[in-house]
Amino acid sequence: MSGPDPRHMAHALRLAARGLGHVWPNPAVGCVIEREGRILGRGWTQPGGRPHAETVALAQAGAAARGATAHVTLEPCAHYGQTPPCADALVAAGVARVVVALSDPDPRVNGQGIARLRAAGIEVVEGVCAAEAERLQEGFLRRVREGRPMVTLKLAASLDGRIATATGESRWITGAEARREVHALRARHDAVMVGGGTARADDPALTVRGLGVAHQPVRVVLSRRLALPEDGVLARTAGEVPLWLLHGPDAPAEARGRWEAHGARLIEVPLGPGGELDVTAALVALGAAGLTRVFCEGGSALGASLMGAGLVDRLIVFSAGMALGAEGLPAVGALGLARLAEAPRFALEETRALGGDVMSLWRRA
Amino acid sequence: MSGPDPRHMAHALRLAARGLGHVWPNPAVGCVIEREGRILGRGWTQPGGRPHAETVALAQAGAAARGATAHVTLEPCAHYGQTPPCADALVAAGVARVVVALSDPDPRVNGQGIARLRAAGIEVVEGVCAAEAERLQEGFLRRVREGRPMVTLKLAASLDGRIATATGESRWITGAEARREVHALRARHDAVMVGGGTARADDPALTVRGLGVAHQPVRVVLSRRLALPEDGVLARTAGEVPLWLLHGPDAPAEARGRWEAHGARLIEVPLGPGGELDVTAALVALGAAGLTRVFCEGGSALGASLMGAGLVDRLIVFSAGMALGAEGLPAVGALGLARLAEAPRFALEETRALGGDVMSLWRRA
Repeated sequence: MSGPDPRHMAHALRLAARGLGHVWPNPAVGCVIEREGRILGRGWTQPGGRPHAETVALAQAGAAARGATAHVTLEPCAHYGQTPPCADALVAAGVARVVVALSDPDPRVNGQGIARLRAAGIEVVEGVCAAEAERLQEGFLRRVREGRPMVTLKLAASLDGRIATATGESRWITGAEARREVHALRARHDAVMVGGGTARADDPALTVRGLGVAHQPVRVVLSRRLALPEDGVLARTAGEVPLWLLHGPDAPAEARGRWEAHGARLIEVPLGPGGELDVTAALVALGAAGLTRVFCEGGSALGASLMGAGLVDRLIVFSAGMALGAEGLPAVGALGLARLAEAPRFALEETRALGGDVMSLWRRA
Repeated sequence: MSGPDPRHMAHALRLAARGLGHVWPNPAVGCVIEREGRILGRGWTQPGGRPHAETVALAQAGAAARGATAHVTLEPCAHYGQTPPCADALVAAGVARVVVALSDPDPRVNGQGIARLRAAGIEVVEGVCAAEAERLQEGFLRRVREGRPMVTLKLAASLDGRIATATGESRWITGAEARREVHALRARHDAVMVGGGTARADDPALTVRGLGVAHQPVRVVLSRRLALPEDGVLARTAGEVPLWLLHGPDAPAEARGRWEAHGARLIEVPLGPGGELDVTAALVALGAAGLTRVFCEGGSALGASLMGAGLVDRLIVFSAGMALGAEGLPAVGALGLARLAEAPRFALEETRALGGDVMSLWRRA
């Protein structure tokens, strides 16, 4: 049998991407079942995490799966969860070969899925498109390996790096296309996160709008003392769209009770040495709650805290064609750098025009 | 005769661009002489402004010019300067048709070149690639129409809009490719301009280096009181590469004398209402001295003054993949905006990756 055609794995990765933001705490997996180049079944992890990609693809392929090759973006599961193991389903379907991009570091899988396939006489090829699969499944992998979700930080600023005038005027700096892209980005993350200052200043909804998307990401607000407006959009909608409030040990009991009554989920987080919420602990708490992909939309203090702690995995910058000058509010707050060499660094992935703005995508260097 | 093929004018415009930065106070013109699609002569304004593009192209074409079409990016001159008028040379060569992108607003030409050609029985087609020609010749046109050079402002900053750490450390924020592009940009401008603060902080040479370019742009420094280091690179090289110092009426006579002794040219400029050099008057003085294209490399105060006065025609932003935080030095100084609607706005022309940085080009909106 010749080596697997990597185009099928690329296809499976594109399918997997459809699950991003919809499947936490599960990984977004894609599966393509093929024989001699003919596609027999395609599947991806369904909203909520089930059925799994392999189940969907096998159901499509039916009896034709016998003797075919299954391309899966992550090692098939080997444990009984709410569904029987996918490794067993592939064996039962009689596939001849399974091509896997990455083994699953989840301790319940961790090579056992592949071992199970091989024990059944199935040829297994590992590592096809591994780098692309690592990227796509970064959120799931970070949670398994580090206990925290992947963090994407968005900066939407003037070309001199300001997010508002000195008086706080910020509507609108970037254009309609950039704002639409922000909604698409929200939809591909498990949660949207802001600091309490942004929640107070902007009264944001933090929902996905205008894209025909029904599923909403969790809304996460960090506020040490829960000093958030209770007559705002977040309080009003907490019963409909999940709202998680991360607060400190010193948040007043009455405020906790009132926000729970609004429908919010409260998560207590320890304080860091500066007296602010410890952002690393906050992310670990979000990981423990199941989140794999968090989209942070500011403000400048929270963004700076995340950057300073080395927790910004991806950065998306929208630069608008205007200058607001040195009095404007900075996109990134104080970092306390003693030397240039200490600056958080990012590697450029892509840049393109988006309406009248520049969008650039960066990864932690 | 069919209409002119605009590809020949596009060709002439590419030739014209070779003169940018080398021909002030003359326009950078390009000329293509062609017959039935065969190129007979190509010319562009030579360094120092002479010979003109038409002269070069006609010399190449020789007798073949008779009956051919000349494509010229700017109306041929009609006046005797240091050379006889190009309009007369085209007539003498016997060309059948002249295609012109733009008429020359210089009062010594201003339609007379075209009239001269038509009077000699030559067919003249105007306005081919006029928008592109306006762009290319913007510096010359601004000087003729407004008395000031075109201004390109460069910002090279971290992705949060900072040009140095709080302690002034700035080497290097952008990468080697961006810095090389800056040298190429200097070479395409008549002058490189900085404020006195930048001259004091960075001790810059402001020359074109590493590109095999012999011609150097004029170096312009604005310093109200001529408080510039006299043991620095600028003082040391003022005798070799032109250095023009724009100072206020209150610059001490001794400082003026010393800088003249170093070899600098001194230009007095009135003060604005804020007590700083009036940037509009400064640019008009540079226009009077013949400059058509000025490349401003900061600092943040001079950039903000130019922006605030509506004098930044083009903006080139290099964004590096690092954050310096709110304590860093801002790329653009105070603008004193009362409202977002007052912000200087720019229209995106192009964005692309350059090494690890993002380069974006903007024009005044």
